[in-house]
Amino acid sequence: MTGSGSSVSLDGFLGGRLQIRQPQTGYRAATDPVFLAAWVPAKRGDKVLELGCGVGVASLCLGARIAGLSQTGLELQADYAALALQNAENNEIPLEVVQGDLIKMPASLKEKSFDHVLANPPFFPEGSVSKPKDGGKSLAFVNENNTAVWIDAGLRRLRAGGVFTMIHLSEQLGEILSALAGRAGNVEILPISARKDKPAKRVLVRATKSARGPLRLLSPFVVHSGAEHVQGKPDYSPEAEGILRHGKGFAQS
Amino acid sequence: MTGSGSSVSLDGFLGGRLQIRQPQTGYRAATDPVFLAAWVPAKRGDKVLELGCGVGVASLCLGARIAGLSQTGLELQADYAALALQNAENNEIPLEVVQGDLIKMPASLKEKSFDHVLANPPFFPEGSVSKPKDGGKSLAFVNENNTAVWIDAGLRRLRAGGVFTMIHLSEQLGEILSALAGRAGNVEILPISARKDKPAKRVLVRATKSARGPLRLLSPFVVHSGAEHVQGKPDYSPEAEGILRHGKGFAQS
Repeated sequence: MTGSGSSVSLDGFLGGRLQIRQPQTGYRAATDPVFLAAWVPAKRGDKVLELGCGVGVASLCLGARIAGLSQTGLELQADYAALALQNAENNEIPLEVVQGDLIKMPASLKEKSFDHVLANPPFFPEGSVSKPKDGGKSLAFVNENNTAVWIDAGLRRLRAGGVFTMIHLSEQLGEILSALAGRAGNVEILPISARKDKPAKRVLVRATKSARGPLRLLSPFVVHSGAEHVQGKPDYSPEAEGILRHGKGFAQS
Repeated sequence: MTGSGSSVSLDGFLGGRLQIRQPQTGYRAATDPVFLAAWVPAKRGDKVLELGCGVGVASLCLGARIAGLSQTGLELQADYAALALQNAENNEIPLEVVQGDLIKMPASLKEKSFDHVLANPPFFPEGSVSKPKDGGKSLAFVNENNTAVWIDAGLRRLRAGGVFTMIHLSEQLGEILSALAGRAGNVEILPISARKDKPAKRVLVRATKSARGPLRLLSPFVVHSGAEHVQGKPDYSPEAEGILRHGKGFAQS
C-alpha cells in the first residue's frame, strides 16, 4: 500500500472507537494528533481543513468528537492520502481528502475559506541529524521544521475570525509566534508536559486570524500521573485518559 | 526626592535584609524584580548590567544572593538613579549607577561588555488605556512595551556566551522570542503563575548570546499555594517564600 512497500497495521484510537490503518514503518500517529483534535474549538457546521493529514487521525478524532463538521484533509503523499480516505470510510466519518502540496495549494482548496485549520507538522528536534531512509518519512524530512510555511498556508485558508490550531515542539515556539505575528491574535499556548514539574516538550497553539487580543500562556497539560515511567504500567492522567480513550476535548479553554 | 515631588518610603525586601527607598507614587518595586534577580545565573566575579534599574531592587537582590559581582545599573530617571545609588550604599552592596537612556547607550557602557544583562522593563497589558499622569510613571509609558528595544540594547552589551535575563508579561512572549531570534539561543522560559492551574501572567526568559541550543519551556513557577486569595492570609508557596523572604534562587534550572 505504501510507496516503500511496507505493510499496514490496524490501530485503535479513542479507546477503539476509531480503527485506523497506517503504514508499519515511517511516520506513525500516536498521541499528538489526538491531542491536536481535542484542542480545536470547532462546532457543528464548521468547515475544517487539516494540513498534512497523514492517514487522517486528527481529522477523524475531531469528527468523532464533534458531529456535523465539513472536513477536508490535505496530504502530500498519495499512499497516506489513500489510507486517510479509506479510514474515513471505514469509520463512517465524513472527510474529503485532497492529495497535494501545501506549498502549491491545490486550486480546489484555494477557492475555499475555512472556519478552522489544524496541523500536526512533521517535527524533529533541533540538532537531530540521523534521518531515516524510508520513502515516506524522508519526504516529510524535506520540509524539516519549516513552521512558517505551514502557518502561512493555514492562515491563508482561514476566513477572518477563523482559528488556526497546531501541535509542535516547544522549541519551535519562537518560529510559531513570529509566523503568527500581525496576522492572527488571541494566541493561546497550552504546554504539554509528560509529567508534573517537567519541561513541556510539546505545545498546542491556537490563534484567531485577524484578531488582536493578547497572548495567553496556559497552565500545562500533564499527560502522565506518576513521577516517572514504570515498565508496563500505563499511567495517563485522568484528563489525558479522557482525551485519548474517551474522545473528550480539553477541560481548559 | 523625586521629580514629581512625591515622598519616599522605606521598604524591606528579602525578609528585611534589604532596606529600599522608593517613591510612594509611580512605579514601585514588588515581587517582579526579586524573581528576576533569583533567575540570573551569575557567579562570583561576573560583570552584570541591569537595564532600567529603577531604585535598584533587582540588582541589590542579586548582589545579596551572589557575592563578588561587579554590578552596574542604567537608569533613565535621575531621581530613581539617585535612590538606587543611595540604596546600594545603605545596604552595603556594590552597585555603579549610570544615569542615561538605553536607546542612546552612554559611552561609558558602550565600551564594556558584560557576562549578564538583566531587565524588568515597564510593562502594561495590551489594550490598557488609562495612563497615570505622574511624572515618573509617565516617562516609562513613553516606551510602552518596546520589548525589542530593550532586548537589542541588552544583547549588544553582552559578550558572546553572556546571558540576558528578563521578566515580562507573558503576552509579550512573541515580541521577546522574535527579538532574540538569530542572536541568542538556549532560550529558557519560566512561566510564573499566581496559582496552580492558572494561566501564567508573567514569564522569566533567559537566553545566551550567540548560542544555538533549542528553546526550553519549563514547568511554571507557582507563587501562591492556595486555590484563591483569602483576605489577610499570605500564602506564598514554599519556593516563593524562599526567594522573596530568604533571598534564594529558583530551584529549577
